[in-house]
Amino acid sequence: MELPSTILSQAVDALATLPGVGRRSALRYALHLMKEPEGEVLHLAESLSRLKTDLRTCRLCHCVSDSDLCPICSSPKRQQNVICVVENVQDVMAIENTQQYRGLYHVLGGVISPIDGVGIRDLNIDSLLDRVRGTNPVPVDEVILALPTTMEGDTTNFYLNKQLQPLGVKVSTLARGIAVGDSLEYADEITLGRSIVGRIPFAG
Amino acid sequence: MELPSTILSQAVDALATLPGVGRRSALRYALHLMKEPEGEVLHLAESLSRLKTDLRTCRLCHCVSDSDLCPICSSPKRQQNVICVVENVQDVMAIENTQQYRGLYHVLGGVISPIDGVGIRDLNIDSLLDRVRGTNPVPVDEVILALPTTMEGDTTNFYLNKQLQPLGVKVSTLARGIAVGDSLEYADEITLGRSIVGRIPFAG
Repeated sequence: MELPSTILSQAVDALATLPGVGRRSALRYALHLMKEPEGEVLHLAESLSRLKTDLRTCRLCHCVSDSDLCPICSSPKRQQNVICVVENVQDVMAIENTQQYRGLYHVLGGVISPIDGVGIRDLNIDSLLDRVRGTNPVPVDEVILALPTTMEGDTTNFYLNKQLQPLGVKVSTLARGIAVGDSLEYADEITLGRSIVGRIPFAG
Repeated sequence: MELPSTILSQAVDALATLPGVGRRSALRYALHLMKEPEGEVLHLAESLSRLKTDLRTCRLCHCVSDSDLCPICSSPKRQQNVICVVENVQDVMAIENTQQYRGLYHVLGGVISPIDGVGIRDLNIDSLLDRVRGTNPVPVDEVILALPTTMEGDTTNFYLNKQLQPLGVKVSTLARGIAVGDSLEYADEITLGRSIVGRIPFAG
């Protein structure tokens, strides 16, 4: 598709680098922006630039943050002796949305995956161990491993557990079981099996 | 979904104003950009700003252009006595992609649609009539109406034809018929009917 303008063409090429956006959608976005008020388009452009120039990661948990320490790590209302280890920033948000967790987080930035060339050195593992050893604001009593239930997630869980156990910290992981609202009939065998093995006292 | 950073939050809000982009996709785009090299993100931001600051519309055909006159209107290779009237810039590109048309264009910027509040004054109709009356580089021999086959498109066709006829210019419209590769069995009645009425000499 040849565009009648190099300015438009450049914008389309740049938008098409976004994940899941093809040239047709990129053109649709660009033509939409062309018709928007100048202020809004400049605001969009500036907020995208700021993602690189102003956005930082928290020095403690590696979550995105406006400042050196993220709002969660710096909140006096959080339980600072519990750390929940997650793969990425989206997972922090997913857990925050449940409003069931009041501890801190640690964003690994991925999981161990030799096939994708992601090794131990590429992840925020050393800083997690340092936090348990003493850099956390208060001594850490429990580390919750909340990584995905994939082979890579399990490998990472296994490695982290091996590193954490000698430090004398309690290591736990998310409960696996039947999703709320699901019927047993349609649950897969592994999940159903785990939900029986990991059964809990009935809280009537 | 509460984000741990106002910078991220602003970028997500701004991206979510794009057509068909929800907050979840916007977050995905923002987190992707966070990981991209700074140069690429600033390039994206700048090319979006330029859509408003530098992009212009051709003074003759109203298509997007880098300069006062678009590459099509200023090309000596184009047949300047034929004008194809289209609804928007995307339609110019669609016709250009066929490589079957060598004339000029005129972008109306919409079609007459009282229900959407689009009237004759909101469209580039006066400048089309002016071109036929004499502002076109060469006298116009034919105007091809290539508007969508909707009630609004038909209304606009009808209005344009009524305005153009007295100016002594030939007015034509796109052939309607069975799409190439389609079987008659599955064609809708109106299209099939029009393809019979508008039958053409067999070019064996």
